[in-house]
Amino acid sequence: MTEREHHFMQAAIGLARKGMQNGHGGPFGCVIVHGNEIVGEGFNCVTSANDPTAHAEVVAIREACSRLQTFQLSDCELYTSCEPCPMCLGAIYWARLQKIYFAASRHDAADAGFDDSFIYDELVLPLAGRKIPMLSFQRAQAVEVFEEWKKWPGKISY
Amino acid sequence: MTEREHHFMQAAIGLARKGMQNGHGGPFGCVIVHGNEIVGEGFNCVTSANDPTAHAEVVAIREACSRLQTFQLSDCELYTSCEPCPMCLGAIYWARLQKIYFAASRHDAADAGFDDSFIYDELVLPLAGRKIPMLSFQRAQAVEVFEEWKKWPGKISY
Repeated sequence: MTEREHHFMQAAIGLARKGMQNGHGGPFGCVIVHGNEIVGEGFNCVTSANDPTAHAEVVAIREACSRLQTFQLSDCELYTSCEPCPMCLGAIYWARLQKIYFAASRHDAADAGFDDSFIYDELVLPLAGRKIPMLSFQRAQAVEVFEEWKKWPGKISY
Repeated sequence: MTEREHHFMQAAIGLARKGMQNGHGGPFGCVIVHGNEIVGEGFNCVTSANDPTAHAEVVAIREACSRLQTFQLSDCELYTSCEPCPMCLGAIYWARLQKIYFAASRHDAADAGFDDSFIYDELVLPLAGRKIPMLSFQRAQAVEVFEEWKKWPGKISY
Protein backbone atom coordinates (compact mmCIF):
# COMPACT_ATOMS: atom_id res chain seq x y z
CA MET A 1 0.00 0.00 0.00
CA THR A 2 1.17 3.55 -0.65
CA GLU A 3 0.73 6.65 1.46
CA ARG A 4 -2.49 7.31 -0.44
CA GLU A 5 -4.20 4.13 0.76
CA HIS A 6 -2.88 4.60 4.29
CA HIS A 7 -4.34 8.11 4.34
CA PHE A 8 -7.84 6.94 3.41
CA MET A 9 -7.77 3.98 5.79
CA GLN A 10 -6.76 6.29 8.62
CA ALA A 11 -9.79 8.41 7.75
CA ALA A 12 -12.03 5.31 7.99
CA ILE A 13 -10.54 4.25 11.33
CA GLY A 14 -10.82 7.83 12.57
CA LEU A 15 -14.55 7.78 11.79
CA ALA A 16 -14.90 4.48 13.66
CA ARG A 17 -13.40 6.03 16.78
CA LYS A 18 -15.36 9.27 16.42
CA GLY A 19 -18.70 7.49 15.99
CA MET A 20 -18.07 5.35 19.05
CA GLN A 21 -16.87 8.25 21.21
CA ASN A 22 -19.87 10.38 20.28
CA GLY A 23 -22.34 7.60 21.07
CA HIS A 24 -23.61 7.03 17.53
CA GLY A 25 -23.16 3.25 17.59
CA GLY A 26 -20.55 0.53 17.16
CA PRO A 27 -16.84 1.25 16.43
CA PHE A 28 -16.95 1.10 12.64
CA GLY A 29 -16.08 3.72 10.01
CA CYS A 30 -15.92 3.90 6.23
CA VAL A 31 -14.98 6.28 3.42
CA ILE A 32 -15.65 6.03 -0.30
CA VAL A 33 -13.09 7.52 -2.64
CA HIS A 34 -13.52 8.73 -6.22
CA GLY A 35 -10.18 9.65 -7.76
CA ASN A 36 -8.48 11.25 -4.80
CA GLU A 37 -11.61 12.68 -3.21
CA ILE A 38 -13.76 11.30 -0.42
CA VAL A 39 -17.32 11.30 -1.80
CA GLY A 40 -19.04 9.43 1.01
CA GLU A 41 -18.32 8.70 4.64
CA GLY A 42 -20.08 6.93 7.45
CA PHE A 43 -19.86 5.56 10.92
CA ASN A 44 -22.18 3.06 12.53
CA CYS A 45 -25.47 4.67 13.66
CA VAL A 46 -27.54 1.57 14.43
CA THR A 47 -28.48 2.38 18.00
CA SER A 48 -28.68 6.16 17.72
CA ALA A 49 -30.75 6.17 14.51
CA ASN A 50 -32.84 3.10 15.37
CA ASP A 51 -31.75 1.63 12.06
CA PRO A 52 -30.18 -1.85 12.02
CA THR A 53 -29.03 -1.20 8.44
CA ALA A 54 -27.05 1.92 9.38
CA HIS A 55 -23.64 0.26 9.27
CA ALA A 56 -20.70 2.47 8.31
CA GLU A 57 -20.48 1.03 4.78
CA VAL A 58 -24.21 1.35 4.07
CA VAL A 59 -24.23 4.94 5.35
CA ALA A 60 -21.19 5.80 3.20
CA ILE A 61 -22.61 4.10 0.08
CA ARG A 62 -25.92 5.93 0.45
CA GLU A 63 -24.11 9.25 0.88
CA ALA A 64 -21.79 8.71 -2.09
CA CYS A 65 -24.69 7.67 -4.33
CA SER A 66 -26.74 10.63 -3.24
CA ARG A 67 -23.86 13.03 -3.87
CA LEU A 68 -22.90 11.54 -7.26
CA GLN A 69 -26.56 10.99 -8.23
CA THR A 70 -26.03 7.38 -9.22
CA PHE A 71 -26.88 3.91 -7.97
CA GLN A 72 -23.56 2.46 -9.16
CA LEU A 73 -20.13 3.32 -7.73
CA SER A 74 -18.09 1.33 -10.22
CA ASP A 75 -15.31 3.93 -10.37
CA CYS A 76 -14.99 4.25 -6.58
CA GLU A 77 -12.97 2.50 -3.88
CA LEU A 78 -14.23 1.74 -0.38
CA TYR A 79 -12.10 1.85 2.78
CA THR A 80 -13.62 0.34 5.89
CA SER A 81 -12.21 -0.14 9.37
CA CYS A 82 -13.47 -3.75 9.47
CA GLU A 83 -14.19 -6.54 7.01
CA PRO A 84 -17.73 -5.89 5.75
CA CYS A 85 -20.50 -8.04 7.25
CA PRO A 86 -22.72 -9.95 4.79
CA MET A 87 -25.22 -7.08 4.65
CA CYS A 88 -22.51 -4.57 3.77
CA LEU A 89 -20.75 -6.94 1.40
CA GLY A 90 -24.08 -7.41 -0.38
CA ALA A 91 -24.49 -3.63 -0.57
CA ILE A 92 -20.94 -3.36 -1.98
CA TYR A 93 -21.77 -5.83 -4.75
CA TRP A 94 -25.04 -4.09 -5.59
CA ALA A 95 -23.21 -0.73 -5.72
CA ARG A 96 -20.53 -2.43 -7.88
CA LEU A 97 -17.61 -0.77 -6.14
CA GLN A 98 -14.25 -1.19 -7.85
CA LYS A 99 -12.03 -2.17 -4.94
CA ILE A 100 -12.37 -2.74 -1.20
CA TYR A 101 -9.83 -2.15 1.55
CA PHE A 102 -10.51 -3.23 5.11
CA ALA A 103 -8.52 -3.24 8.36
CA ALA A 104 -9.83 -5.55 11.13
CA SER A 105 -11.32 -8.95 10.26
CA ARG A 106 -14.75 -10.50 10.92
CA HIS A 107 -13.08 -12.52 13.68
CA ASP A 108 -11.79 -9.36 15.34
CA ALA A 109 -15.38 -8.05 15.16
CA ALA A 110 -16.70 -11.27 16.74
CA ASP A 111 -14.11 -10.92 19.49
CA ALA A 112 -15.48 -7.42 20.18
CA GLY A 113 -19.02 -8.81 20.49
CA PHE A 114 -20.44 -8.41 16.98
CA ASP A 115 -22.37 -11.00 14.96
CA ASP A 116 -20.58 -10.68 11.62
CA SER A 117 -19.00 -14.10 11.74
CA PHE A 118 -22.20 -15.76 12.97
CA ILE A 119 -24.19 -14.26 10.09
CA TYR A 120 -21.59 -15.46 7.56
CA ASP A 121 -22.06 -18.96 8.97
CA GLU A 122 -25.88 -18.75 8.83
CA LEU A 123 -26.00 -17.58 5.21
CA VAL A 124 -24.62 -20.80 3.81
CA LEU A 125 -26.84 -23.10 5.84
CA PRO A 126 -29.89 -24.69 4.23
CA LEU A 127 -33.06 -22.82 5.21
CA ALA A 128 -34.13 -25.47 7.71
CA GLY A 129 -30.84 -25.21 9.63
CA ARG A 130 -30.94 -21.48 10.27
CA LYS A 131 -31.61 -19.77 13.57
CA ILE A 132 -34.35 -17.61 11.99
CA PRO A 133 -37.07 -19.83 10.46
CA MET A 134 -37.53 -19.16 6.73
CA LEU A 135 -40.45 -20.59 4.80
CA SER A 136 -41.49 -20.28 1.17
CA PHE A 137 -44.99 -20.18 -0.35
CA GLN A 138 -46.95 -18.37 -3.12
CA ARG A 139 -43.93 -18.76 -5.41
CA ALA A 140 -46.09 -18.87 -8.56
CA GLN A 141 -47.73 -15.50 -7.83
CA ALA A 142 -44.34 -13.83 -7.30
CA VAL A 143 -42.81 -15.39 -10.40
CA GLU A 144 -45.73 -13.93 -12.34
CA VAL A 145 -44.48 -10.43 -11.37
CA PHE A 146 -40.97 -11.38 -12.55
CA GLU A 147 -42.49 -12.42 -15.90
CA GLU A 148 -44.15 -9.01 -16.14
CA TRP A 149 -40.79 -7.38 -15.32
CA LYS A 150 -39.05 -9.26 -18.15
CA LYS A 151 -41.44 -7.68 -20.63
CA TRP A 152 -41.69 -4.30 -18.89
CA PRO A 153 -40.92 -1.39 -21.24
CA GLY A 154 -38.40 1.19 -20.10
CA LYS A 155 -37.18 -0.79 -17.10
CA ILE A 156 -33.83 0.26 -15.66
CA SER A 157 -31.49 -2.61 -14.82
CA TYR A 158 -29.23 -2.42 -11.77
CA MET B 1 -50.00 -21.60 5.84
CA THR B 2 -53.29 -20.14 6.99
CA GLU B 3 -55.34 -17.35 5.47
CA ARG B 4 -53.39 -14.92 7.68
CA GLU B 5 -50.03 -15.68 6.09
CA HIS B 6 -51.53 -15.70 2.59
CA HIS B 7 -53.01 -12.28 3.24
CA PHE B 8 -49.66 -10.73 4.21
CA MET B 9 -47.78 -12.42 1.37
CA GLN B 10 -50.33 -11.08 -1.08
CA ALA B 11 -49.63 -7.62 0.33
CA ALA B 12 -45.89 -8.10 -0.27
CA ILE B 13 -46.41 -9.33 -3.83
CA GLY B 14 -48.85 -6.47 -4.43
CA LEU B 15 -46.14 -3.99 -3.41
CA ALA B 16 -43.69 -5.70 -5.78
CA ARG B 17 -46.06 -5.17 -8.69
CA LYS B 18 -46.97 -1.61 -7.66
CA GLY B 19 -43.32 -0.54 -7.29
CA MET B 20 -42.47 -1.93 -10.71
CA GLN B 21 -45.51 -0.45 -12.43
CA ASN B 22 -44.85 2.99 -10.95
CA GLY B 23 -41.20 2.97 -12.02
CA HIS B 24 -39.65 2.88 -8.54
CA GLY B 25 -37.31 -0.01 -9.25
CA GLY B 26 -37.19 -3.80 -9.48
CA PRO B 27 -40.22 -6.06 -8.89
CA PHE B 28 -39.79 -6.73 -5.19
CA GLY B 29 -42.08 -5.99 -2.24
CA CYS B 30 -42.04 -6.61 1.49
CA VAL B 31 -44.19 -6.13 4.59
CA ILE B 32 -43.26 -6.45 8.25
CA VAL B 33 -45.94 -7.64 10.63
CA HIS B 34 -46.24 -7.09 14.37
CA GLY B 35 -49.13 -9.08 15.81
CA ASN B 36 -51.68 -8.71 13.05
CA GLU B 37 -50.61 -5.25 11.95
CA ILE B 38 -48.32 -4.19 9.13
CA VAL B 39 -45.72 -1.91 10.73
CA GLY B 40 -43.39 -1.49 7.77
CA GLU B 41 -43.65 -1.89 4.03
CA GLY B 42 -41.36 -1.38 1.10
CA PHE B 43 -40.80 -1.89 -2.57
CA ASN B 44 -37.50 -1.70 -4.39
CA CYS B 45 -36.42 1.93 -4.99
CA VAL B 46 -32.81 1.41 -6.13
CA THR B 47 -32.99 3.22 -9.44
CA SER B 48 -35.50 5.93 -8.52
CA ALA B 49 -33.82 6.86 -5.21
CA ASN B 50 -30.23 6.36 -6.43
CA ASP B 51 -29.75 4.03 -3.50
CA PRO B 52 -28.37 0.54 -4.15
CA THR B 53 -29.39 -0.44 -0.60
CA ALA B 54 -33.06 0.45 -1.15
CA HIS B 55 -34.25 -3.12 -1.55
CA ALA B 56 -37.81 -3.85 -0.44
CA GLU B 57 -36.71 -5.59 2.76
CA VAL B 58 -34.27 -2.84 3.79
CA VAL B 59 -36.88 -0.16 3.13
CA ALA B 60 -39.47 -2.10 5.17
CA ILE B 61 -37.05 -2.78 8.05
CA ARG B 62 -36.05 0.87 8.23
CA GLU B 63 -39.70 1.94 8.22
CA ALA B 64 -40.73 -0.56 10.90
CA CYS B 65 -37.78 0.40 13.14
CA SER B 66 -38.53 4.07 12.71
CA ARG B 67 -42.21 3.55 13.53
CA LEU B 68 -41.59 1.30 16.54
CA GLN B 69 -38.55 3.35 17.65
CA THR B 70 -36.30 0.34 18.00
CA PHE B 71 -33.33 -1.24 16.24
CA GLN B 72 -34.56 -4.78 16.91
CA LEU B 73 -37.66 -6.37 15.44
CA SER B 74 -37.51 -9.60 17.40
CA ASP B 75 -41.29 -9.81 17.78
CA CYS B 76 -42.02 -9.19 14.09
CA GLU B 77 -42.40 -11.37 10.98
CA LEU B 78 -41.22 -10.40 7.52
CA TYR B 79 -43.02 -11.32 4.29
CA THR B 80 -41.11 -10.74 1.07
CA SER B 81 -42.01 -11.49 -2.53
CA CYS B 82 -38.57 -13.03 -3.14
CA GLU B 83 -35.92 -14.86 -1.14
CA PRO B 84 -33.80 -12.12 0.46
CA CYS B 85 -30.44 -11.38 -1.19
CA PRO B 86 -27.34 -11.53 1.07
CA MET B 87 -27.61 -7.82 1.86
CA CYS B 88 -31.24 -8.16 2.95
CA LEU B 89 -30.62 -11.43 4.76
CA GLY B 90 -27.84 -9.70 6.67
CA ALA B 91 -30.21 -6.86 7.53
CA ILE B 92 -32.79 -9.42 8.71
CA TYR B 93 -30.25 -10.99 11.07
CA TRP B 94 -29.13 -7.63 12.42
CA ALA B 95 -32.79 -6.64 12.99
CA ARG B 96 -33.31 -10.05 14.64
CA LEU B 97 -36.66 -10.71 13.00
CA GLN B 98 -38.59 -13.64 14.36
CA LYS B 99 -39.67 -15.40 11.18
CA ILE B 100 -39.28 -14.93 7.43
CA TYR B 101 -41.68 -15.87 4.66
CA PHE B 102 -40.69 -15.52 1.02
CA ALA B 103 -42.33 -16.39 -2.31
CA ALA B 104 -39.96 -16.58 -5.33
CA SER B 105 -36.44 -17.98 -4.95
CA ARG B 106 -32.98 -16.52 -5.60
CA HIS B 107 -32.93 -18.61 -8.79
CA ASP B 108 -36.19 -17.08 -9.99
CA ALA B 109 -34.59 -13.67 -9.33
CA ALA B 110 -31.48 -14.66 -11.32
CA ASP B 111 -33.73 -15.80 -14.16
CA ALA B 112 -35.30 -12.31 -14.16
CA GLY B 113 -31.85 -10.70 -14.44
CA PHE B 114 -30.90 -10.01 -10.82
CA ASP B 115 -27.56 -10.77 -9.15
CA ASP B 116 -28.82 -12.38 -5.93
CA SER B 117 -27.51 -15.83 -6.75
CA PHE B 118 -24.16 -14.48 -8.00
CA ILE B 119 -23.63 -12.53 -4.77
CA TYR B 120 -24.44 -15.62 -2.68
CA ASP B 121 -21.71 -17.45 -4.61
CA GLU B 122 -19.17 -14.63 -4.16
CA LEU B 123 -19.67 -14.35 -0.39
CA VAL B 124 -18.26 -17.78 0.34
CA LEU B 125 -15.19 -17.43 -1.89
CA PRO B 126 -11.81 -16.63 -0.37
CA LEU B 127 -10.99 -12.93 -0.78
CA ALA B 128 -8.54 -13.57 -3.60
CA GLY B 129 -11.16 -15.40 -5.66
CA ARG B 130 -13.79 -12.66 -5.66
CA LYS B 131 -14.77 -10.46 -8.60
CA ILE B 132 -14.25 -7.31 -6.47
CA PRO B 133 -10.66 -7.15 -5.15
CA MET B 134 -10.55 -7.01 -1.34
CA LEU B 135 -7.35 -6.24 0.52
CA SER B 136 -6.59 -5.89 4.22
CA PHE B 137 -4.09 -3.62 5.97
CA GLN B 138 -3.79 -1.45 9.14
CA ARG B 139 -5.47 -4.24 11.12
CA ALA B 140 -3.65 -3.30 14.34
CA GLN B 141 -4.97 0.27 14.31
CA ALA B 142 -8.56 -0.89 13.83
CA VAL B 143 -8.30 -3.57 16.50
CA GLU B 144 -7.17 -0.82 18.87
CA VAL B 145 -10.57 0.85 18.41
CA PHE B 146 -12.28 -2.49 19.17
CA GLU B 147 -10.25 -2.69 22.38
CA GLU B 148 -11.49 0.79 23.32
CA TRP B 149 -15.06 -0.35 22.55
CA LYS B 150 -14.75 -3.34 24.88
CA LYS B 151 -14.01 -0.97 27.77
CA TRP B 152 -16.35 1.81 26.63
CA PRO B 153 -18.79 2.87 29.38
CA GLY B 154 -22.46 3.03 28.50
CA LYS B 155 -22.12 1.31 25.15
CA ILE B 156 -25.32 -0.11 23.67
CA SER B 157 -24.98 -3.60 22.20
CA TYR B 158 -26.92 -4.54 19.06
